[in-house]
Amino acid sequence: MAEAPDPKQKLRGICRIAARVFYEKGYDGASMQDIAEAVKLTKAGLYHHVGSKDRLLFEIMNYGMDILDESVLEKVKSIEDPKEKLRQTIIGHIDLVVRARDQEITVILHENRSLKGALRKKINARKKAYIHYLEDLISQVQDQSGHERLISPALAAFNLLGIINWLYQWYQPDGPISQEELTQGCVDFFFRGLVGSTPPTPARPEDQNPFV
Amino acid sequence: MAEAPDPKQKLRGICRIAARVFYEKGYDGASMQDIAEAVKLTKAGLYHHVGSKDRLLFEIMNYGMDILDESVLEKVKSIEDPKEKLRQTIIGHIDLVVRARDQEITVILHENRSLKGALRKKINARKKAYIHYLEDLISQVQDQSGHERLISPALAAFNLLGIINWLYQWYQPDGPISQEELTQGCVDFFFRGLVGSTPPTPARPEDQNPFV
Repeated sequence: MAEAPDPKQKLRGICRIAARVFYEKGYDGASMQDIAEAVKLTKAGLYHHVGSKDRLLFEIMNYGMDILDESVLEKVKSIEDPKEKLRQTIIGHIDLVVRARDQEITVILHENRSLKGALRKKINARKKAYIHYLEDLISQVQDQSGHERLISPALAAFNLLGIINWLYQWYQPDGPISQEELTQGCVDFFFRGLVGSTPPTPARPEDQNPFV
Repeated sequence: MAEAPDPKQKLRGICRIAARVFYEKGYDGASMQDIAEAVKLTKAGLYHHVGSKDRLLFEIMNYGMDILDESVLEKVKSIEDPKEKLRQTIIGHIDLVVRARDQEITVILHENRSLKGALRKKINARKKAYIHYLEDLISQVQDQSGHERLISPALAAFNLLGIINWLYQWYQPDGPISQEELTQGCVDFFFRGLVGSTPPTPARPEDQNPFV
C-alpha cells in the first residue's frame, strides 16, 4: 500500500500544478476554483492546504528558491576555487531555467509584483541572499584575476541574472542551439565581460557540465 | 482655442495611461471599466477608441515598439561605423528602459503571453525585426574586430536583450549607480563579452551618451 505523502511533498505537488495554472492564466486571471480543479481538490480542501491565494503564490516562489538552493547551491558548496564555483553556479542556474521553463521559476519572474507585505519581504530576502552570494563570488574571481576590477560586482551580478532569467523568453531546447552550446556560450561571454578572459575548460569531460 | 488632438496622439495618450493600469493590476486583473476611469472616458467611449481589451494591449505594445524606433533606431540610422552604431543603440535602449520603467515597455515585457492570434504575430514580427537588426550589427562588429567569432550573433543579441530588459527589475535611477555609470558599465561588459575588448571612448564628451 502506498504511504500518504508527507505534508511538504503534498504542498510541493500543489505548487507545481498551481504554478502551471498561474503561468497560463496569470495570477489575477486564475481563480482558486481553477487551481482546486487542476490539483483535484475541493476549494475548501485547497484552502486547507495553502491558506490563501497570496500564500499559495508565496509557497510557489519559496519552492522555486528551494530548488535553486537544493539543485544548484548545495552541489557547488564544496568547490573551493571561486572561478570554478561561479562557473558551476551559472551552469546549474541555466539548467534550472531551461528545464523548468513553464513552471515555478517563470511564475517567480513574472508575478513579482502580485505578492505584498510580509510574504513579499520574505521572498525578496531570499532573492537578495542569492544576489549577495553571486556578488561575493564575482569579487573573489576579480581579485583572483590579478588585475583591477573592470566592472562593479553588483552590476556584473545583475547582468548575469538578466542573461539567465531572459532565457525562458527565447530559448527553445529543441531549437538550433543545444543546451551545451548555450551554457558554454553564456559562461564564456560572462567571464570575458567580467575579467576579460574565459575560464579554463576542466580536464575531465564529465566536469564540464555536471547538470546535463 | 486648443485644437482637438489628432487620433494618433489621442490613442497614444490612452495607451500611456492604460499601460500604467495594466502594470499595477496585471492585464487580467484590470477591467475596461478601470481603464475607462483612468483615462476619463465612458466605457463606451473607451471601446470606441480602442475596439477591445486585446486590441488595447496590442496598441500599447505597438506604441512601445514605435518609441524604440523613433527615439533610438532613427537617431543611430546615419552612423556608419558598426561599433559606434551598436554602442549608441545600447545606450539608447537602456535609456528607454530606465526612464519608462513603469510604463509601456514594462507591460510589453510582462504581458507577452496575454496577446493571442494575429495581434501577437504582428508584435512578434516587430520584435524579431529588432533582434535581426541587433544580430546583423553584432556580426558586423565581429567581422570588424579582425579575429574569429567568440560567440554566435544570436546568442550575443539575446544576452544583450536579457541585460537591458532585466534593468527594470533592479535598477533605481536614484540609487548608488548613476545612469552614466550603468550605461558605460553595460556597454563595456557587453563589448568585452562580444569581441574581448571595449570600444574606444568618443573624443567629444557630448558623444558619450547623447540620450542623457
